[in-house]
Amino acid sequence: MKEKIVLAYSGGLDTTVIIPWLKENYEECEIIAVCVDVGQGKETDGLVEKAEGMGASKAYILDVREEFITDYVYPMVKANAVYESKYLLGTSIARPLIAKKLADIALKEGATAICHGATGKGNDQIRFELTIKAFAPNLKIIAPWRTWDIQSREDEIEYLLARNIEVPMTKEQSYSRDRNLWHLSHEGLELEDPKNEPNFNHLLQLGVSPEKAPDMATYIDLEFKKGIPVKLNGKAITPIELMDQLNIVGGANGIGICDLVENRVVGMKSRGVYETPGGTILYYAHRELEYLCLDKQTTSYKEIIANKFAELTYSGEWFTPLREALSAFIDSTQETVTGKVRLKLYKGNIISAGSESPYSLYNEDIASFTTGELYSHADAEGFINLFGLPLKVRALMTENANK
Amino acid sequence: MKEKIVLAYSGGLDTTVIIPWLKENYEECEIIAVCVDVGQGKETDGLVEKAEGMGASKAYILDVREEFITDYVYPMVKANAVYESKYLLGTSIARPLIAKKLADIALKEGATAICHGATGKGNDQIRFELTIKAFAPNLKIIAPWRTWDIQSREDEIEYLLARNIEVPMTKEQSYSRDRNLWHLSHEGLELEDPKNEPNFNHLLQLGVSPEKAPDMATYIDLEFKKGIPVKLNGKAITPIELMDQLNIVGGANGIGICDLVENRVVGMKSRGVYETPGGTILYYAHRELEYLCLDKQTTSYKEIIANKFAELTYSGEWFTPLREALSAFIDSTQETVTGKVRLKLYKGNIISAGSESPYSLYNEDIASFTTGELYSHADAEGFINLFGLPLKVRALMTENANK
Amino acid sequence: MKEKIVLAYSGGLDTTVIIPWLKENYEECEIIAVCVDVGQGKETDGLVEKAEGMGASKAYILDVREEFITDYVYPMVKANAVYESKYLLGTSIARPLIAKKLADIALKEGATAICHGATGKGNDQIRFELTIKAFAPNLKIIAPWRTWDIQSREDEIEYLLARNIEVPMTKEQSYSRDRNLWHLSHEGLELEDPKNEPNFNHLLQLGVSPEKAPDMATYIDLEFKKGIPVKLNGKAITPIELMDQLNIVGGANGIGICDLVENRVVGMKSRGVYETPGGTILYYAHRELEYLCLDKQTTSYKEIIANKFAELTYSGEWFTPLREALSAFIDSTQETVTGKVRLKLYKGNIISAGSESPYSLYNEDIASFTTGELYSHADAEGFINLFGLPLKVRALMTENANK
Amino acid sequence: MKEKIVLAYSGGLDTTVIIPWLKENYEECEIIAVCVDVGQGKETDGLVEKAEGMGASKAYILDVREEFITDYVYPMVKANAVYESKYLLGTSIARPLIAKKLADIALKEGATAICHGATGKGNDQIRFELTIKAFAPNLKIIAPWRTWDIQSREDEIEYLLARNIEVPMTKEQSYSRDRNLWHLSHEGLELEDPKNEPNFNHLLQLGVSPEKAPDMATYIDLEFKKGIPVKLNGKAITPIELMDQLNIVGGANGIGICDLVENRVVGMKSRGVYETPGGTILYYAHRELEYLCLDKQTTSYKEIIANKFAELTYSGEWFTPLREALSAFIDSTQETVTGKVRLKLYKGNIISAGSESPYSLYNEDIASFTTGELYSHADAEGFINLFGLPLKVRALMTENANK
Repeated sequence: MKEKIVLAYSGGLDTTVIIPWLKENYEECEIIAVCVDVGQGKETDGLVEKAEGMGASKAYILDVREEFITDYVYPMVKANAVYESKYLLGTSIARPLIAKKLADIALKEGATAICHGATGKGNDQIRFELTIKAFAPNLKIIAPWRTWDIQSREDEIEYLLARNIEVPMTKEQSYSRDRNLWHLSHEGLELEDPKNEPNFNHLLQLGVSPEKAPDMATYIDLEFKKGIPVKLNGKAITPIELMDQLNIVGGANGIGICDLVENRVVGMKSRGVYETPGGTILYYAHRELEYLCLDKQTTSYKEIIANKFAELTYSGEWFTPLREALSAFIDSTQETVTGKVRLKLYKGNIISAGSESPYSLYNEDIASFTTGELYSHADAEGFINLFGLPLKVRALMTENANK
Repeated sequence: MKEKIVLAYSGGLDTTVIIPWLKENYEECEIIAVCVDVGQGKETDGLVEKAEGMGASKAYILDVREEFITDYVYPMVKANAVYESKYLLGTSIARPLIAKKLADIALKEGATAICHGATGKGNDQIRFELTIKAFAPNLKIIAPWRTWDIQSREDEIEYLLARNIEVPMTKEQSYSRDRNLWHLSHEGLELEDPKNEPNFNHLLQLGVSPEKAPDMATYIDLEFKKGIPVKLNGKAITPIELMDQLNIVGGANGIGICDLVENRVVGMKSRGVYETPGGTILYYAHRELEYLCLDKQTTSYKEIIANKFAELTYSGEWFTPLREALSAFIDSTQETVTGKVRLKLYKGNIISAGSESPYSLYNEDIASFTTGELYSHADAEGFINLFGLPLKVRALMTENANK
Repeated sequence: MKEKIVLAYSGGLDTTVIIPWLKENYEECEIIAVCVDVGQGKETDGLVEKAEGMGASKAYILDVREEFITDYVYPMVKANAVYESKYLLGTSIARPLIAKKLADIALKEGATAICHGATGKGNDQIRFELTIKAFAPNLKIIAPWRTWDIQSREDEIEYLLARNIEVPMTKEQSYSRDRNLWHLSHEGLELEDPKNEPNFNHLLQLGVSPEKAPDMATYIDLEFKKGIPVKLNGKAITPIELMDQLNIVGGANGIGICDLVENRVVGMKSRGVYETPGGTILYYAHRELEYLCLDKQTTSYKEIIANKFAELTYSGEWFTPLREALSAFIDSTQETVTGKVRLKLYKGNIISAGSESPYSLYNEDIASFTTGELYSHADAEGFINLFGLPLKVRALMTENANK
Repeated sequence: MKEKIVLAYSGGLDTTVIIPWLKENYEECEIIAVCVDVGQGKETDGLVEKAEGMGASKAYILDVREEFITDYVYPMVKANAVYESKYLLGTSIARPLIAKKLADIALKEGATAICHGATGKGNDQIRFELTIKAFAPNLKIIAPWRTWDIQSREDEIEYLLARNIEVPMTKEQSYSRDRNLWHLSHEGLELEDPKNEPNFNHLLQLGVSPEKAPDMATYIDLEFKKGIPVKLNGKAITPIELMDQLNIVGGANGIGICDLVENRVVGMKSRGVYETPGGTILYYAHRELEYLCLDKQTTSYKEIIANKFAELTYSGEWFTPLREALSAFIDSTQETVTGKVRLKLYKGNIISAGSESPYSLYNEDIASFTTGELYSHADAEGFINLFGLPLKVRALMTENANK
């Protein structure tokens, strides 16, 4: 059968190679190139022409940045989801959206297959394919990196040169990177040995290291409504503007740099350096507000839920009943997470500078040293006596059993 | 019956008031003052004389600092236990040890009661009394703050003056503080309104704020054996020295300052600022090593265990079967947490500067971009197909159910 | 101030004693008796007159049985909430509803206090009072059993006789019981020693022991829609009818008898025998359907959620943000829990007799021995290789470390 | 290279086919047949001769039944591990032991590969291979069912007939079964459609259905020491005898039959009927004792641990750091799980008939209706006031926020 293939296309080296490869390996196939813009920070002008010039019969460019922040990033912020205590899931959170758009277009176009350029060792192949299976279970998935002979960037360049195709890069890129509106990741080179200190001067692109940040602190105010950020420094702001501005102020102050040896889904450890300047601020601010607005039990249980949420997001299990049920839990907890948080940004530090909420459960009368109406010191004795009763019973039992 | 009372004694204002108060309220009672030194940083010279001068029949001073670090702090470090994502449990972790020593002495001395100076609003009363119930279930517990008329520091001073007793403090202390070898906490004053930014210049005692830290970074090397720190900068070191030195270097670099609105056990929120310079470094270093040495599943589950461990420690439930079972779990995971971690300390930041372990599960051959012997790209397809099978089956079922 | 007291009233011995006691102890107080009918199975005719005859200024009788099943029991069924692996929460689940109704009336009537007849050793005082605090935080709570001198049923009778008040019971009741549309509990007498076998012939009231059940099995069909039972044996049925009929058929077949030593909230163990014939069937049937309709991950995580849900329900923490968030999670999982379950009831056994659902994730093609289109045996190898990669890496590392 | 293959051998149809198949597909390979006896209930006499007759160069028969119960089953009993609320892990728990023995022999014999006869759709391939990877990471694994053309039992028989090899079965076996000292499982035939009621008369082999069980109940006494069963009906008993006798008495009374649609590791649902007569009794008895001996918090947390333990066991992740850490947790909780349990077995029911322990935390004085020394009713008020304080604060905050 003649294949009609939807290709995840960026205009970069990998996907440029894939077009001729598909042409050579799937006879008479038709290729529809789709570029899903989640804020990669690359020019999309001319991309349609470029794809078509390479042999695609059609090309789509979709700007999904707002949807990305609203429907993917914000649910994650509400959850405070952090993978393995460090990683803010910057690549993970974008993949389901990209894959869903690919599946949507494939179904609309009556395609027979979806092709992506993720490697056979990484998490992204899983994230892409799980979402494709969820929305287009009958489509074939083509993952050239798992099957072709190409093993490296050099092989790719050679492949193009051998076919007289222009190589879409002027200088050698060093690290393997992924960027979107939420973050930028770096892998490879010196990072491949965990013993090495990362070379931040070389690596960083969204911001500077703490050492290079200004000597003067910057204060910012963030306002949330039901767990969603709605104002920055007192002004209403769109999701895209918010991320842009937080990335700028965070990056400038050396915020959100993370160096991590993590466990991939495919069973290996890998190491990356992540820049998430705006995201780190947003998580911090959101959590500050939760300290005021969530009760002890909810706080405690939500931490466990957040762990699971992060694991599912990391593994590409976004469009699953469990992730949706976790989100329902989280949304329920956010009803009163409304208020204002003030933060001081200084050379890599985020420092709490006061927060307030109309739904704050902090009660100054109760918390202060002296006794007010709401709290009787005498109650504490009864509380402790019952809270400690199991320990007392056990101690008496032990005395008795040892007699 | 004539009471024989073991009193938790520090020589400070609170416990100085309690001695005459006990004498007045428990007719002919005998008082045994016990000062348990967990690194409060106060002079204990002359304390025996002082207590006896006040009316105690006997006084003990116990230096338990090493036991404190070895048997209480290290198990917590191995767990990575953090309460409500921020608090390193500095006060919590010392209480069970102090209370156990009080109970030991009370049993040895044939005492009838144990008296402590914790207030009726805090967590410490619970932590003290739970441990006392566990070791001396038949003893009475006396908690003057829950029963007397004294409501404030001023009342205490007045109480002493009215009895011509010397007031044991020269200037007015501002914040309510607790200190030991692991940390220093601050409560009260401007902190009582969460809207206020803390006045670090005023507050901090173990170190400086990031702004006042040196412009030059400091590197340190920490070495662990089965989760326990054994060397600092290449030299073997005792637990007490380690904490002392990490507190100094951490404090100097503005590390480990935390501002938190937390949920107390007694049902209220309270706010504190915590300085844990050495502890913060130790936690960070230990976790860096775990990233190398623990597999994905253990890493994930240990986070959940750590939450519970932190909650039990916070609530004073240290000497419980559950905390002991959690520790058994944790110890089992630490078998291979052995290796070296290099950290860069700079103005409040702890920055990973490389780590290594003979038990590292990071395998450069597998992790690198190109394919080695251990990993076949082709396996990934099978993996994803089965991992994603439930999603595919569900999608097909849904298609079918919607027909 | 003259108190206006809303009293939880049943017409039984306890609450009959409370009316004169309140009159004697709260000068000129006004009493509003409220009987909330959750299916206690007692006659409520004449109860208003009786309460007023005793001195209440007003009396309410509220039939909330349908609300009880729909808004309290069904959410619990959807959760599969079981306390300590055995207890179906029969008493626990009714308390929040009763207390909410008391609070509603108290607020409507402008009452100053709410009085209940729960003892100072049990869970019910907690369940009542937590809900009252949640809805009427400013009202006083009066719990006579915690303050009066009465210690036993005999004391109560004497108290009434001394006042020439008719004692509202003809024969001595043996066990302490609680009944509603969902269950019947028994405590006391021989049950107070866990070593004793319960005397079922004496105890049971909702059904018979397995030995006395018929020799012929009974089959029933239950149909659920989104986790809610909607049909019994093919016929649509109201919640009240459903419980009535399931209790009858379950009781007759010796189903749902449970003998348990449980951990109360107040820190002690207690033992009870519970009859939940209809509830046991409902739980079983609901879970059978979930086996078909929920995926592996959701199934697994929902078990953990169910444990927490059960604990909160047991502790009276129904009207809390956490319980509500758990319910949001659970409701999200029930979207596809729709279908039919056939059960065989026989002498205490519930035996699965087949189930089906339009949303079943069981796929006969995949599950059968031979290979179909959806599943390739070859995929399994790749799956296992990656799933087992961490183990292999670890084994190689160990070989290496031991060299 | 000439392969030297260790083959998991049972003498049944599957493994009989594999020997000639290996000979044909691995030129000049040497085959070492290993039969690991975990209580399959089949004759092992003559098995060595049979294997050698088929072409194996060597054959081992290992009776590991006691090790199976002691080192695998008992840790699972202590955990109360149940997969998906129903399955007592009968097949799962035996696989790691079998695979470990295969790996041990392979290493001892200097083999190059291990071969097993598990199919490509099931869990067993995973369980075998994960353990092999853990102990013999350098060995090849051969799984013929994933690669050969044989698709059914009929194909196997044909394969043997075509080679003039005797077919090792006299009559057609209907269900696919797995048996060991702990259980017997059934899959296939009518069970492949979850809508069908299982035909117990046909299926059951270890016992009878409840309907066919005796009309008279049987009482048994089980005694545990630190969570391990040590006596049956007052007599010390070996692990093998215990399982044998419990299987007999349980089977005779219709105990431990389970019909389940479960989620396999490979991403599909499958249905099985399990007979675990002795195991069901052992789990029940053990848990009865835990109700007496474990405190509330440990009970609660251990349920969560048990879920994870069951999932790991089910997935073949027995020899993993996480399973070992969970076992360390569990062992710690079993210190006081010592005592006696009396059970009544009657037509499928296990009915508690009283239990006792020197470490019982049930305290009759505290639990009884009237007040004793250890418990003050007045304490309850303080307890509830603090336990309910967050709810009260929240209610007041809400009143305020809504003003």
